[in-house]
Amino acid sequence: MAAERLVADDDFEDRVRASFERQPAMTTIGAELTRVTPGMVEIEMAFSDRLTQQHGFLHAGVISTAMDSACGYAAYTLMPDNAAVLTIEFKVNLLAPGKGERFLFRGAVTKPGRTIIVADGQAYAFGADGEAKLIATMTGTMMTVIGRDGILG
Amino acid sequence: MAAERLVADDDFEDRVRASFERQPAMTTIGAELTRVTPGMVEIEMAFSDRLTQQHGFLHAGVISTAMDSACGYAAYTLMPDNAAVLTIEFKVNLLAPGKGERFLFRGAVTKPGRTIIVADGQAYAFGADGEAKLIATMTGTMMTVIGRDGILG
Amino acid sequence: MAAERLVADDDFEDRVRASFERQPAMTTIGAELTRVTPGMVEIEMAFSDRLTQQHGFLHAGVISTAMDSACGYAAYTLMPDNAAVLTIEFKVNLLAPGKGERFLFRGAVTKPGRTIIVADGQAYAFGADGEAKLIATMTGTMMTVIGRDGILG
Amino acid sequence: MAAERLVADDDFEDRVRASFERQPAMTTIGAELTRVTPGMVEIEMAFSDRLTQQHGFLHAGVISTAMDSACGYAAYTLMPDNAAVLTIEFKVNLLAPGKGERFLFRGAVTKPGRTIIVADGQAYAFGADGEAKLIATMTGTMMTVIGRDGILG
Repeated sequence: MAAERLVADDDFEDRVRASFERQPAMTTIGAELTRVTPGMVEIEMAFSDRLTQQHGFLHAGVISTAMDSACGYAAYTLMPDNAAVLTIEFKVNLLAPGKGERFLFRGAVTKPGRTIIVADGQAYAFGADGEAKLIATMTGTMMTVIGRDGILG
Repeated sequence: MAAERLVADDDFEDRVRASFERQPAMTTIGAELTRVTPGMVEIEMAFSDRLTQQHGFLHAGVISTAMDSACGYAAYTLMPDNAAVLTIEFKVNLLAPGKGERFLFRGAVTKPGRTIIVADGQAYAFGADGEAKLIATMTGTMMTVIGRDGILG
Repeated sequence: MAAERLVADDDFEDRVRASFERQPAMTTIGAELTRVTPGMVEIEMAFSDRLTQQHGFLHAGVISTAMDSACGYAAYTLMPDNAAVLTIEFKVNLLAPGKGERFLFRGAVTKPGRTIIVADGQAYAFGADGEAKLIATMTGTMMTVIGRDGILG
Repeated sequence: MAAERLVADDDFEDRVRASFERQPAMTTIGAELTRVTPGMVEIEMAFSDRLTQQHGFLHAGVISTAMDSACGYAAYTLMPDNAAVLTIEFKVNLLAPGKGERFLFRGAVTKPGRTIIVADGQAYAFGADGEAKLIATMTGTMMTVIGRDGILG
């Protein structure tokens, strides 16, 4: 995808970073926005005991939270500056336990569109050896919303 | 579904409650396990600013976290006492913004099975008027795991 | 859902039936439109060897084809008369083998909306004893399209 | 993925082709099995009026039928010779109308596994100019079944 040409607003990175700062859920799970390019966003976080399920692995919902933000912001990079992004739906496949020292979540636009944008995401776990392991994938459908209730970002 | 007859272990409620206690992610999002019946589980939580996205609504991932636990434990009520439950995949549709004072997440088994269990979930928001609003639905595929690495619950 | 009040056009049944007639895929799989009510549609078909997979059961894709039409037309019952319905995405869970003499596919609107409509579907198989068995479920996201390329229905 | 090493049976291509031949649904939609490699399968078909929806495009369910077979057989290439493949669930995103002269459906294993295999699929349309257009994506969860009711393939 020639994503560069799809960017509707050159300040996409500033907009994404400002919106991410306004997501308290990202602070709560200790997630950082590490990469913002046209149509692709990466979020990283450290493992934390506070975010685990009963077997001591990262909870599937926490993995989904970070991937949803990554996919949503990937879509948002391509939107005009007066738009807001909403998640309509997503599907997650959990491929391996969420164990590791650090995690990287990537969202990338598969199909841009004026109203509907489809993005795919991957979640990777990094162990002590630094090797990346694919632990989950997501497909999400995002919607561009303009002029609704002053909702922005 | 005649779920009563499907229960493989009469102590299902104790097992579910013990496992829920071992999910730190539930404490982190302030979720409580309020109902455990054969094939159905309910989880409730209060709204918290710490769990919101950029528009001030509950993050879709937090909604998914609670629904995944509800669906997973609904499946777990039907499993034998030496089993553990794993989420293979789920899909979430976000139907309305996650705004409200309290939230209820229900998971119920649609299709029991020895290895694969399919559960459906609903998320409801309650405003100041106390009326329930359906804000999200989930379909999840859960797996019964027995004898893997001492994983239980 | 008070679907009655949601109907935007009283001729919804005629519109749905006319559109169904223009779906050759329904003829190819031998499907009939048996029920059209506000927000809910049923489609029925007989088992046919031509539509099976390698184990002699109805192919998962054929089940999906009929459920997608049922969910799409359920959404379409609530749309204005100048609209067309498009499927954005759907998820199917196959719960039991597609074996039986006849099949019924029901689609019903879970969340109406101006642009996005979410519908849920069920597929039932009927054996010689006439008992219904749930063999699959669907959640689909449908879109109302108005004024695109003369697309209608 | 080092899929070569994952092959449990060197006759995987023969097994896949034999099973495909036993899928009458593939004949009904005019689909051919054009490529079978370890962990990846391609299916092709010509456009046919018989398989369209109300706007004259390939029905989303027909696209799903071919992608489900591609994903299922991709999983099947990695299974032992006494196994059968079952689809547990799949999700499809429709990205563009199903219009074209020919279609190619690719399924590839994202996550191999002893019991559960996750595969991702793409559907491409080819117009008169021969250029490929991505029209749909799938994520499917497949299951290895051994020794059930003489089910094979």
